[in-house]
Formats: sequence, structure tokens, C-alpha cells
Amino acid sequence: MHPVVEILGSLAAVITTLGWLPQLLKIRREKKADDISLVAIGTIATGVLLWTFYGLFIGSWPVIMANAVTFLFIVAIVGMKLHYARAVQTGG
Amino acid sequence: MHPVVEILGSLAAVITTLGWLPQLLKIRREKKADDISLVAIGTIATGVLLWTFYGLFIGSWPVIMANAVTFLFIVAIVGMKLHYARAVQTGG
Repeated sequence: MHPVVEILGSLAAVITTLGWLPQLLKIRREKKADDISLVAIGTIATGVLLWTFYGLFIGSWPVIMANAVTFLFIVAIVGMKLHYARAVQTGG
Repeated sequence: MHPVVEILGSLAAVITTLGWLPQLLKIRREKKADDISLVAIGTIATGVLLWTFYGLFIGSWPVIMANAVTFLFIVAIVGMKLHYARAVQTGG
């Protein structure tokens, strides 16, 4: 594979992975995530997990790493969304 | 490539792509997206666009289609987020 294409793939992997970080920080800062769809992030997390297994099967470290890290970010987003939703309900 | 691995990749592509639809529908239903980070979805859209070009370079239709459709969903989410944020400001 041409080096430029490899770089493009790695860049795409890094950007789509790190792209979740500002969302995570915004929820932590504002302590709310009501507008985020739990069904959406749950579905995307499932898909990203499948991509991680796909990366394992094809032996592609960039695919494994990008999707494993993305999965962790999304799990953190789901966790915070549930936490702050509960805090609102219990007046905490 | 083993057919099971191909299926896994296609399933991952379909799920991560369709995963954005519930978020799009939630914003349209509730007419607000304040908790969604514009920096996050802008960055992810950029990464997804790069994946689309990567798919073109490697000639992989699943990568091209999954990321092109995901890009369209995210552009729609960005558009609606800006629209409803402006509607709130102008009291529209």
C-alpha cells in the first residue's frame, strides 16, 4: 500500500478517535448530556467494538487501537450521561 | 479474507453508520442539541471524510459507503444543531 494512503488511514483513525474527546470534556464541564441519544451512542459503541474484533481478525493495529480507544471514550460518555441523569433525578 | 471476517466488517460498518440515525431523530424531535459538542462532531466528520477518501484509494466500497453515509448524517446533525441554536437566540 502506498505510504500516502497509509498516512491517510492513520490520520483518519486518529481524528475520528480523538474527535470524541471534546464531547467527553463538554459533558464533564457542563455535567449534563440530555441531548445525546443513548440509543445512538450505544449502537455506535457496539459497532466500534465489532470494528475492534475485525481489526484483531485482520491483524491491523491501527484499526484495533483506533476502535478500542473510541470504545473507551464512548463507554465513558455513556457512564457520565447515566450518572448526571441520575444526579438530576435524585436532586444530587 | 475469510467470509466471517467480511461479514463482521460489513456489520460493523452498517452499525456504526446507522448508529447516528437515532441521534439525528432525537434532535429533530426535541429541537435542541446544546449538549452535543460542535468541536467533537466537526472533528469526527473530518475524520470520517478522510476515511471516505481512504476507501476510494484502497477501492473498498464498504469503507466508502459507510463513511460517506456517516458523513451525511453528521453534516445533518451539525446543520440542525446550528439551526436550533439560532432559533433559540432569535426567539424563533
